[in-house]
Amino acid sequence: MKYSIIAIGDELLIGQVTDTNSGWIAREMSVYGWELQKVQVVPDNADAIKKAIDIAFEESDVVLATGGLGPTKDDITKTTLCDYFGGELIFDDATLANVLEVVEKRHLKLNEYTRNQAYVPSSCEVVQNEVGTAPILWFEKDEKVLVSMPGVPFEMQHMMKKVLIPKLVKKTHDNMHLQYRTFIVIDIIESLLAMQLDDFEKELPEYMHLAYLPTPGLIRLRLTGACKDESLLSANMDKFSAKLHELVGDKIICDEDMPLAQILGKKLLEKGMTVASAESCTGGNIAHEITRIAGSSSYFKGSVVSYANEVKINVLNVSSADIDVHGVVSEPVVQQMVSGVCKVMNTDCAISTSGIAGPGGAEPGKPVGTVWIAAKAADNVVSQCFHFPGDRERVINRATNEGIKMLLKLLND
Amino acid sequence: MKYSIIAIGDELLIGQVTDTNSGWIAREMSVYGWELQKVQVVPDNADAIKKAIDIAFEESDVVLATGGLGPTKDDITKTTLCDYFGGELIFDDATLANVLEVVEKRHLKLNEYTRNQAYVPSSCEVVQNEVGTAPILWFEKDEKVLVSMPGVPFEMQHMMKKVLIPKLVKKTHDNMHLQYRTFIVIDIIESLLAMQLDDFEKELPEYMHLAYLPTPGLIRLRLTGACKDESLLSANMDKFSAKLHELVGDKIICDEDMPLAQILGKKLLEKGMTVASAESCTGGNIAHEITRIAGSSSYFKGSVVSYANEVKINVLNVSSADIDVHGVVSEPVVQQMVSGVCKVMNTDCAISTSGIAGPGGAEPGKPVGTVWIAAKAADNVVSQCFHFPGDRERVINRATNEGIKMLLKLLND
Repeated sequence: MKYSIIAIGDELLIGQVTDTNSGWIAREMSVYGWELQKVQVVPDNADAIKKAIDIAFEESDVVLATGGLGPTKDDITKTTLCDYFGGELIFDDATLANVLEVVEKRHLKLNEYTRNQAYVPSSCEVVQNEVGTAPILWFEKDEKVLVSMPGVPFEMQHMMKKVLIPKLVKKTHDNMHLQYRTFIVIDIIESLLAMQLDDFEKELPEYMHLAYLPTPGLIRLRLTGACKDESLLSANMDKFSAKLHELVGDKIICDEDMPLAQILGKKLLEKGMTVASAESCTGGNIAHEITRIAGSSSYFKGSVVSYANEVKINVLNVSSADIDVHGVVSEPVVQQMVSGVCKVMNTDCAISTSGIAGPGGAEPGKPVGTVWIAAKAADNVVSQCFHFPGDRERVINRATNEGIKMLLKLLND
Repeated sequence: MKYSIIAIGDELLIGQVTDTNSGWIAREMSVYGWELQKVQVVPDNADAIKKAIDIAFEESDVVLATGGLGPTKDDITKTTLCDYFGGELIFDDATLANVLEVVEKRHLKLNEYTRNQAYVPSSCEVVQNEVGTAPILWFEKDEKVLVSMPGVPFEMQHMMKKVLIPKLVKKTHDNMHLQYRTFIVIDIIESLLAMQLDDFEKELPEYMHLAYLPTPGLIRLRLTGACKDESLLSANMDKFSAKLHELVGDKIICDEDMPLAQILGKKLLEKGMTVASAESCTGGNIAHEITRIAGSSSYFKGSVVSYANEVKINVLNVSSADIDVHGVVSEPVVQQMVSGVCKVMNTDCAISTSGIAGPGGAEPGKPVGTVWIAAKAADNVVSQCFHFPGDRERVINRATNEGIKMLLKLLND
């Protein structure tokens, strides 16, 4: 299915807000083999919106629009769509009831602006927004579909997952069953993995497809299938998933799409183990990644961010003589940090980092991007030196990911 | 000046990469009063690119294109532009010399793909890319300008700031002098600030403009001016900046556009003071924000992320009796945390947090989003309870920002 996205809002065109909705929609719909033709970001302006719809319909059968549905005067998407598709704005009691419910859940009172959300174009089908006051408007015309959704990412995502994706798939793939599975792969580069899976891809039935989604430090492999025979599809998804495991082996660290920190969390819960971090150059980012995951308090006890050498020495018990001899970016230092933080935090596992994130701080033989990382799980300790390219932010992020991966691999051994 | 952006790349349309370039460009160019008409995100496809250029030129005099300039076969922007603007690809020695320099700086060797970067359309002016191998292509036709830049954010931003923005401004605003100043404002909501500055805005000369750029926790006020008389402009920028300070007072915490953590860093350097953090619900994010700033090792010593109560008690010396009596999300606990971490890290200042980031963990009287924060500067300690709306990520981010602001205000007193 070919589709387009139109993101509407002045705030997007002055750079006040970044349009992350389009990327999210693209990732979700790619699972169903939907091909995004184009994204247009346009202001809250009727002519601009109408022109964008014309352009989008030239190349797509479905248009997903986000934004411009707020209750204030700036937001003109609803009236513009009513103008474009015909009909008139009518007051809809079902929508008012939904708006009231949402407003009450937020412990707010209905005001005139919010009440106006219940006016909807007579030319559309309304999909009630479970988590916001702006109703979702579903238009159909000449075999084409346009769905207008709120721009608030949380509302859009909730409604897409819960109602709109199933409704879109049902509408556009008649009687087609869709399945997908995601595998997180580490320790191999994309081109090598693709070579290794060349025959595998050729063996796939024509209604199945393998996609490579690489990000720094890992590759998401996504196996998708769309077929009218559900049991045949399920059987083949099982068969080829098993085959994938056979071919890629323990480089597959997870059979679900989740962040590295969440995979680590699952593994720690499974083993009943706890974790801490001792961070120099990553500056708390490993702890931050771990604690972004809801429920992480079950296995994460804490961290010592030891930016100053005195903190490494006094809090983590790193030998000041070793710092003098080997330098603070060195194997003995990260090994002592990882053991030290396990003692301080009373945990089974830990990750430690010491490196040069840049732009300053390079030393002879230790350019910016040099990072020593250690991981400890029970009595096993591993350490490794990395040289990451890029600026400060990229070095911090890569070191964070590699640290989490090192501990994960240690736990998988 | 009306302009458009075209972001090119298949990776943007499968959601593998989010287009953050357009927002960055929009923010930068808004300073010069440039109005972004539209953003189009299109695949690495010649027809799609040409069509997007046609659409962009309909409404804009300048088109800024990003992406699709890599050395691989997928990247067809260069040949497509050559086709669109006419001419042929010619081998350019100056570009080769620049590519060689960049490759050597990265300790890499030139391969055939990278060497091909030196082929450039004869119909364009080449702007050498100081930080990457893809040359920047500057086309002019019928009074219109198209600039094709690499999609790597770091390369694009570096070249925009250093070369392209001055070149664009010179080209498009003849003899016009441009100036802008940014003020970071806290502790007031946008509508109230706007009411307070109503008369101020009316008094501005017609060639000056005040913009409000709110983000959670702060507002950027941007005063811009464009005028042929440079000394008149400078005098008025000075006059109205002073007036703004008079009207907004100490709610202006900085006269430059920089992250809160960088403002804090400047203030600490000024006072010769050091900082640490003791974080529960923010999980290391305060330390992460502080250490994202290059040079932060001059004033940041470290942090204790004390997720588990035992870490609060054992490492930060929080009274376990107080945890029992008042709960872990309470004023005595954050006050003891902030003092404890100053002792452990031997710093003058610290920030501490304890709260419920959600989705779980709510207690009677303490819903998700409840966060106690304390800040300490020398002998002064302040603490406050917040109730942040939103999901886990938003609660963590808001608590991080409020913590940094609390310490900043304490240092400003």
